[in-house]
This record gives sequence, structure tokens and C-alpha cells, in this order.
Amino acid sequence: MLTPERLSLNTATVSKQWNLRQCVEGCQRHGFGGIAPWRDKLQEAGVDEGARMIRDAGLTVTGLCRGGWYTAEGSLTPAVLDDNKRAVDEAVAIGAACLVMVVGGLPPGSRDLAAARGLVAEGLARTLDYARAQAMPIAIEPLHPMYAADRACVNSLSQALDLCDQLGAGIGVAVDVYHVWWDPDLAGQIARAGSDRLLAFHICDWLVPTRDLLTDRGMMGDGVIDLPAIRAMLEAGGFNGLNEVEIFSAENWWKRDADEVLAEIVARGRTSC
Amino acid sequence: MLTPERLSLNTATVSKQWNLRQCVEGCQRHGFGGIAPWRDKLQEAGVDEGARMIRDAGLTVTGLCRGGWYTAEGSLTPAVLDDNKRAVDEAVAIGAACLVMVVGGLPPGSRDLAAARGLVAEGLARTLDYARAQAMPIAIEPLHPMYAADRACVNSLSQALDLCDQLGAGIGVAVDVYHVWWDPDLAGQIARAGSDRLLAFHICDWLVPTRDLLTDRGMMGDGVIDLPAIRAMLEAGGFNGLNEVEIFSAENWWKRDADEVLAEIVARGRTSC
Repeated sequence: MLTPERLSLNTATVSKQWNLRQCVEGCQRHGFGGIAPWRDKLQEAGVDEGARMIRDAGLTVTGLCRGGWYTAEGSLTPAVLDDNKRAVDEAVAIGAACLVMVVGGLPPGSRDLAAARGLVAEGLARTLDYARAQAMPIAIEPLHPMYAADRACVNSLSQALDLCDQLGAGIGVAVDVYHVWWDPDLAGQIARAGSDRLLAFHICDWLVPTRDLLTDRGMMGDGVIDLPAIRAMLEAGGFNGLNEVEIFSAENWWKRDADEVLAEIVARGRTSC
Repeated sequence: MLTPERLSLNTATVSKQWNLRQCVEGCQRHGFGGIAPWRDKLQEAGVDEGARMIRDAGLTVTGLCRGGWYTAEGSLTPAVLDDNKRAVDEAVAIGAACLVMVVGGLPPGSRDLAAARGLVAEGLARTLDYARAQAMPIAIEPLHPMYAADRACVNSLSQALDLCDQLGAGIGVAVDVYHVWWDPDLAGQIARAGSDRLLAFHICDWLVPTRDLLTDRGMMGDGVIDLPAIRAMLEAGGFNGLNEVEIFSAENWWKRDADEVLAEIVARGRTSC
């Protein structure tokens, strides 16, 4: 049972309907406690203006989505590293709790997952140096194994926490139920993370059947994820942040009136989380 | 580099084109060393007749697909347990190297993965008692995490091997590259399994993009899986069985002439495995 002030709206949930200003105003109208902008929405609004409107609305920023993609060019080019520095700067500008990292999959033409993972570790280390100096926490988001090739080659909490162990202070994880709900070691890894490294909690649901690998996420309660159980693991692990709702849904929620979507999120927070 | 006698045809690869007799004759025509029938094809042919035609063709049977589905009715009903006994009997009848187990996902209406996994462990124990008496090895096939809800709640080699540890002799794993290629601990878990528990090796490829969660597997070489590297892990672990080709492909290979499919498999064995 979540009241709306414990919810944060990830702007991807209404990415086809609203710009950042509309998202901020929607959060206020529906009583959300926070927001997590994607960078495209923030840049479109202008970073300073976006920061101002979020601050004026009194919303907590549960994260900025997203940095990463270290493998996109097959090496850590200046373009890749600079874009991640800009992401840190933007996260700082809006007072985000963390910068969420989708680390990238296999480089173009490669089948070498181990090499991709090495590149990611090195890239994260480079961004972390910059982020630490600005006290901006970096959150590795392990993505579901079905995205290992094309989005992120960090595919479990265990693997993400191994990276954190290796990289030291200032880096933790974003736990998205969609990516980790299946993990037999989920409770153990959340406990291992601990409050210092549990930086964000993303919620939605896994639909049966799932009709698209990327854009068929479900509204909380419409799928098979035991959301209260996973939230209890996070809270037992010391996480006390907001519950960030991130639903990619090309055929359903992205086609609806955004106010209807937010109203449904508020309702499901009470019944299904 | 695999020569055709090191290949086995899983009948699912041409399930829309051929019955068991056609599969057996196709294997002979293209020089395959083995075959792995699905139960529907075997039952359609008649188990005794199917066993005879495979034996007469001199084909190794790398596995029978499949037993399991312990969670289908929410408890271990006589129907579920008896069907698994029949699967063991059929595997024995055709001289299969193992009976492959797809264990089942969440029971209908359930969100309790831990309970489903408990049910699976108990079901496997029951079938194993029966299989041991007939010296038929049971192979748990961990399925990709994207099937946790609707097909199999055993989703990693680590989890499958924990079950094997718990259940004792007579049970091992079927390693299908499609399900495990992303696993950061793949080499370690294959080594952990060891030759006694590496019971089957299934190959295909992961396409980018993947357009369907179930029926968009690729032909070896068309995707991103490093097949020679994974085969080397198996062989280092003591596996010396055949390479079983299992490709679900509704929009491509299932639509082609089956002889063309087998010819392509033979070619890709030489170039891409």
C-alpha cells in the first residue's frame, strides 16, 4: 500500500504524451512525491529551466535517466565519456538522487561479452571519478538478460554489485523489478547491497504473455511480479526512497490520456504495490 | 568447426515441416550423428515404431524433449507425475541420453516464484526416483529468465546445479546457449557441473533484434552468441556428446524447405560453431 507521495513518475511512462512541464504539473495534480526525468525530456525543456520547474514544484528527483552506453562505439571515445560527464552535470543541476546507468550491450559486430563488460567497468570508473567530485551517486541498473546484446551487458544484481565492490565509494544500483524479479538470489543480493548502495527502486509489472521485448511492460497489478515482497526486501535493506514508476507500453499506456495513466498509478499504488 | 556427424537434430527445428520419419530420414541424408525428438512427434509416430526407426537409422538420441511442467496445475497431481513417468518410459524406449526437463513457470494465478521453485524441486525428486530405477538421466534445462513466468522458473545454471546438488545422483543439466549465453558466471557454472552432469548441449543463436520471445531464434552464425567459446567451455568440462540444434523460428526457418534448413545447419556447423 503506497500513498501517492511515496510515488515518483519516471517520465518514460508518459513519454509519448507529455513534455517535462506537463509531467511536473501532472505529478503535482496527482500528488506524486517525485519525478525521474529522462535526459531527452530535460534537454528539450532546457536543463536550467527544467531544474527550476522541478524545484518550484517541490518534487524529489529520484534519478536522472540515463548515462552509460559505454560500448556504443566499441571503445571509450571522447564522445562517450563526455556525454557521461554531461549526464552527471545534468543530474547535479536537477538535484537527482542518482544518475542511472544503462551501460550498453555488445559493441557493433562483437560477440565478446567479457570484453564488453570490461569496457563497461572502465567506463564506469572514468565517470565515477567525475561524479565523485560532484557528490553525484552513480546507479548501475542491471538490465534483464534479454537485453544483454543490445542495451546492457550488466544483467544481474550480483554482477552489478561485483562492479560496485571493484569501483568503490559513490556507486550503487538501481533496482528495477522488471529486470530482476526472476532472480533466485534477489533477496540475498538486495541485502548485500545495503542502504548505501540501494539508490533507486523502479516498479512496473511483467505481463504474461509479453508481446514485445522492450515496450510491453505492465501496470503494477496487471502482471506476475510480487511487488509488495520485493519492496519489503528493499526496505529491509535500508532503502527509504520513493517508488519510481517506469512503464514502457507502446500498445496500451502510451496510447492513453496521461492523466488517466497517473490516476491509475495512484490507484495501483494503493492496491498492488 | 563441427562436421555433421557431431550434430544432432532437435525435431523442433523443423517441427512445422516434418514428422519423425522425415526427420530421421533427413538426418541420414545430411549425415547428422543424432536426433532429439519432441514427445509429440514421437507419440504421433508411435513410441515403439519411432524407437525402431531411430535405431535402424543408427542415430544417437541426444535427448527426449521434454518432461517437467510440474507447476502446471498448482500442485503435483497424479496427472503431472504420471505424465513425467511416461516421459521417462519413452526416453528409455528410444535409448535417449537424457530426458530434458522444462520445469514449468508460475502456477496459474500465482506470483509466488519461491513456492513454484519448491514445487519443481519436489516434482523432480519424484520423477528422479522413477528414472533412477531405469537408469535414465534427468536433465534440467534452465530457461532464459524471460520465461520465468510461463515456462520454467529454473533460470540459471547455478540454480539448476543447486537443485542437482540437492537431489543427488542421476540428474544433471541441459545447456542451451540461447538460455545461458548472457550469464556472467557461465564458464564457472559449466566447470562446476562437470562431465557427469553435462547431459546435453543445445545450439542456435540470439538475434538482434529479437522480435518474439519464443519463436525468433536464429541459425548459428546469424546472431551474437560466441558458439565456439561456449562449446569450448563444455568440452573443457568433459562433455563429449553431440551438438543438438534447436531453433524455434516461426517467421524464417519454419517456413523453409526442411532439407534446405538441414543443409544450412551442416554449413553453419562448419563455419560458425
